[in-house]
Amino acid sequence: MSTDWNTLGKNARAAAYQLAAATTDAKNTALAAIANAIQQGSDQILAANAIDLQSGKENGLSESLLDRLALSRERLAAMITGINEVIALPDPVGVSLANWNTEVALHIEKVSVPLGVVGIIYEARPNVTVDAAVLCLKAGNAVVLRGSSSAIESNKALVAAIQAGLLQAGFLQECVQLVTDIDRESVSDFLKQRDYIDVMIPRGGAGLIQFVCENSTVPVLETGAGNCHVFIDASADPGQAVAIVINAKTQRPSVCNAIETVLIHEAWPVDSLQTLLRVLQQQHVRIKACEKTRVFEPALESASETDWETEYLELTLAVKIVADVNEAVAHINRYGTKHSECIVTAENSSRDFFFQNVDAAAVYHNASTRFTDGFQFGFGAEIGISTQKLHARGPMGLTELTSYKYLCRGHGQIRA
Amino acid sequence: MSTDWNTLGKNARAAAYQLAAATTDAKNTALAAIANAIQQGSDQILAANAIDLQSGKENGLSESLLDRLALSRERLAAMITGINEVIALPDPVGVSLANWNTEVALHIEKVSVPLGVVGIIYEARPNVTVDAAVLCLKAGNAVVLRGSSSAIESNKALVAAIQAGLLQAGFLQECVQLVTDIDRESVSDFLKQRDYIDVMIPRGGAGLIQFVCENSTVPVLETGAGNCHVFIDASADPGQAVAIVINAKTQRPSVCNAIETVLIHEAWPVDSLQTLLRVLQQQHVRIKACEKTRVFEPALESASETDWETEYLELTLAVKIVADVNEAVAHINRYGTKHSECIVTAENSSRDFFFQNVDAAAVYHNASTRFTDGFQFGFGAEIGISTQKLHARGPMGLTELTSYKYLCRGHGQIRA
Repeated sequence: MSTDWNTLGKNARAAAYQLAAATTDAKNTALAAIANAIQQGSDQILAANAIDLQSGKENGLSESLLDRLALSRERLAAMITGINEVIALPDPVGVSLANWNTEVALHIEKVSVPLGVVGIIYEARPNVTVDAAVLCLKAGNAVVLRGSSSAIESNKALVAAIQAGLLQAGFLQECVQLVTDIDRESVSDFLKQRDYIDVMIPRGGAGLIQFVCENSTVPVLETGAGNCHVFIDASADPGQAVAIVINAKTQRPSVCNAIETVLIHEAWPVDSLQTLLRVLQQQHVRIKACEKTRVFEPALESASETDWETEYLELTLAVKIVADVNEAVAHINRYGTKHSECIVTAENSSRDFFFQNVDAAAVYHNASTRFTDGFQFGFGAEIGISTQKLHARGPMGLTELTSYKYLCRGHGQIRA
Repeated sequence: MSTDWNTLGKNARAAAYQLAAATTDAKNTALAAIANAIQQGSDQILAANAIDLQSGKENGLSESLLDRLALSRERLAAMITGINEVIALPDPVGVSLANWNTEVALHIEKVSVPLGVVGIIYEARPNVTVDAAVLCLKAGNAVVLRGSSSAIESNKALVAAIQAGLLQAGFLQECVQLVTDIDRESVSDFLKQRDYIDVMIPRGGAGLIQFVCENSTVPVLETGAGNCHVFIDASADPGQAVAIVINAKTQRPSVCNAIETVLIHEAWPVDSLQTLLRVLQQQHVRIKACEKTRVFEPALESASETDWETEYLELTLAVKIVADVNEAVAHINRYGTKHSECIVTAENSSRDFFFQNVDAAAVYHNASTRFTDGFQFGFGAEIGISTQKLHARGPMGLTELTSYKYLCRGHGQIRA
């Protein structure tokens, strides 16, 4: 059935106003009721998930996609633990961010408020349904969810539980709505609901994110793509450099904060370079090397221009020798996706130049890029990692799901 | 000649990296050189402006548009004064916004950085050319300007002066570029330059802003539309209420922070209501009244649904009697554009309810909405007034032309 966007939108807006005025206690009570409803509804949720898994098998989904789609009692328990962690986080709304008096003695206070109605478009994993809804609710936002068709029954069952919890806690069930219309056109229509949706957040692969960025008239928080680098400076400690490269490449290669290229100062000792290459190969990393690197290791595959641009998301790493930190920064600013970039160096001047000139959300000195993450940063939550510069950059937690308003207290001031 | 967007974009990006690394002194020196170049180039600028004025007359531009287009020695002097004021403002870049240690003793510092390359699309007034360029430069951003065809010769002359100043101060002239291709298609092409433009800011009428929001794949900072209200509560001081309504409506009716509708509590004294209507009429304000108001003043024109939605931008005001602050807030949240909203009341509970529940960038208690302005707020500058919730809300000064990055200092940390 095709979505009635006006009804959905107006209901979302009304729910958003209810949430914006809700106390922290009221929101936490709703989150606890949602956790309870998921617990109580486990059998129905798992039964719905079994239908999705059966359809997925019939449609030839890969084992890894089926694994991402699958729910279990353990995974539901992990969702509930996640909800309880969000309950424990401070409320990001109602925070007094600044205040001052103007020349005419108008008192202005800048206070954090919810964004309003947040749209989330995401792929396969049904845990995103709960995760995104709970973070939006804690920040006082209504949310409209549009998951993938392969998880539709699981998502319906999860949203039914969430809505039951909301109603029980005295909130409108439209605080969380699911778009159940799974044809492709419904995504395009969703992206045009400027009157009702304040912010759109895509979560998924590069194709999804690009489609959303190119077709949304709703402001988008772009997330995801990570073509990240480690630059090993001439003075880099060999042990530290190898450990950081191995960690940033191999600890979880499929995520956006893993690295895709290592840049090496030409004055870094050749034996250190050879050690690095050997350890990478021991870790089953396929190496695509520049010609300068192949002088030392002629057996390596040649890298091409395409390699500098590629986010492999697998155990492949491009290797390039550069003249200095200038060339490293120029390479990163040309090919990188402004996500996470690292320099390994013992020299403060190199570090400072890199910090100053690399254009990225997170810039590291002597640490793995894998720390770019809302939990690792200490935000206690993460709705995504922004790769744009507007609004939020890098890991986005609850604070990044808020806006602000100015409260202006006067005593009859008029403009001269 | 059609624009070569790849060349323009790459040059803008290179200029942005130069600016991002520039010191405050270097940027201020460039701004001073620009002021000097405008002074020195006054004759050429005024001659170019005369060509635009002549074309405008031949094309039948209205007197008010011709006035907005016209430059003079006084207006150039005002531009130069404006540049000197921006020089005196603090640098918004390089500010340490927060810092902390994570669980693994990674030290994270959040530091303000420029947005990068800012695109500005604007109408008629050539002073925007200088104003926008100077604010972007102070915040370390390269800027690509696209003014209206009616001001093309003036804009070319002004940008020539700006570029001369930049070169003299050792900056790339591409820190400020003008799109000289004035056909309509060039706007559409400009709006698709996601690879090169970080943020697009439209400045102009509702039509322009809507076109930009609906067609840009570059993130947009939406500015402008203001359907603003004053709500006069039952307890409102009559003198204060009348003064605020008159100021908010008549002091400068053509701007976005002027009001379009006054909402009046039904228990506000009838003689106060009649005084307000009389004073408005003395100020030549055309009144469109709801039926409840017309009970007291039957000679008034009737307001229709359209009036609640209209941003008149002239001396017309809709008047509506409401049952209470709840109805006032519901009306504002339905018809308002989330810009500036005022309550006049002597009751704290009404004020607090209004502050909590009205969804707008600036919410006033007992003061005119006309104060929503970067200068009135004390920001010292204004690039526009945001009516969206992402990134910035309300008046945007230099700080709102920045983003941030996280500098992460480690000593070999890897992710477990």
